[in-house]
Amino acid sequence: MREGYACHALSVDYGQRHAAELAAARAIAARLGAAQHRTVRLDLTVFGGSALTDRAIGVPTDGAAPGIPVTYVPARNTILLSLALAWAEVIDARHIFIGANAIDYSGYPDCRPEYLRAFEAMANLATKAAVEGRRIEVCAPLIDLCKARIVQLALELGIDPAQTVTCYQPDAEGRACGVCDACRIRRAGFEAAGIPDSTRYQLR
Amino acid sequence: MREGYACHALSVDYGQRHAAELAAARAIAARLGAAQHRTVRLDLTVFGGSALTDRAIGVPTDGAAPGIPVTYVPARNTILLSLALAWAEVIDARHIFIGANAIDYSGYPDCRPEYLRAFEAMANLATKAAVEGRRIEVCAPLIDLCKARIVQLALELGIDPAQTVTCYQPDAEGRACGVCDACRIRRAGFEAAGIPDSTRYQLR
Repeated sequence: MREGYACHALSVDYGQRHAAELAAARAIAARLGAAQHRTVRLDLTVFGGSALTDRAIGVPTDGAAPGIPVTYVPARNTILLSLALAWAEVIDARHIFIGANAIDYSGYPDCRPEYLRAFEAMANLATKAAVEGRRIEVCAPLIDLCKARIVQLALELGIDPAQTVTCYQPDAEGRACGVCDACRIRRAGFEAAGIPDSTRYQLR
Repeated sequence: MREGYACHALSVDYGQRHAAELAAARAIAARLGAAQHRTVRLDLTVFGGSALTDRAIGVPTDGAAPGIPVTYVPARNTILLSLALAWAEVIDARHIFIGANAIDYSGYPDCRPEYLRAFEAMANLATKAAVEGRRIEVCAPLIDLCKARIVQLALELGIDPAQTVTCYQPDAEGRACGVCDACRIRRAGFEAAGIPDSTRYQLR
């Protein structure tokens, strides 16, 4: 929005462990003045294969281990970007923004710049819009920022970090567990930035 | 299956005008001995933008016109292939088959070989499986066959064309309208092959 785009915000209710991030996205989109916010339902628990979409697989809480963790959801960003591509074509949007980050991250393959470039190349062969000359650009403004810089940027843009959800397994009030990889990486970002961590944590 | 693959069949209930093609896919998968058949629900009517996902847009019945028709569903094959990619990774399948055809077709951009190659390239950057060396191949065995050859192939493989659904707007019994582009292209395939058209048509 600071760069002048009208923002059409998309969330996907894909069977993740909680609805807290969907509620947070809706509230933030409304408060910052998005043109609209839509939530699409898609039940990825039909496939499972991830700690986030199969309740039989636990979320790791002992810190990052080597390799790609079980919280990886097979092809998730490809599915999310495909849905965004469909909507973008319908409303004639030319830019798709995704919050992927390849610095302080969990090693997910679909957060890497080369993946996003390949998606963009595919998207520009996939659509009627592209065939008619209306190219799509996939934008990942956070891709090469460290978490500390992302925390600073949020504050600069007037976003209250306490109202965002990063945790893989927040409680019903959206309070973070504090021990999953997502919480650990986020907390380290606040520390590195020298900014007090305003995240709402569960009482333990 | 003739080439030795165990077939895990996927249908997507995306809000298309009818469930006849889903029922037909399920029945054919069972009869031919697929390892399994799953249907994923995803409501693309949230986006609309196509005669197939927006009831306010009519299905053309006057024959093919220049350009990409209103039956084009924005990013449909990208969404379908993304869901197949997710499932393939979960069950460690290495080949994704899609019935796209670029010869006797309606001009959809996401049925072209260059699109499918771009999807495959993206897929092999997207997944944990690919990062670990288990590459995905996107296969489109019908891509360069004319409709007449596809009809012949179906008969050679023991598939009864009367049980398949091609029509964009079949009735509740799955009977074809006979006048939409999909019906017209299919019917011409039977004629070119010199094979009696066993399609079940609606009485008019």
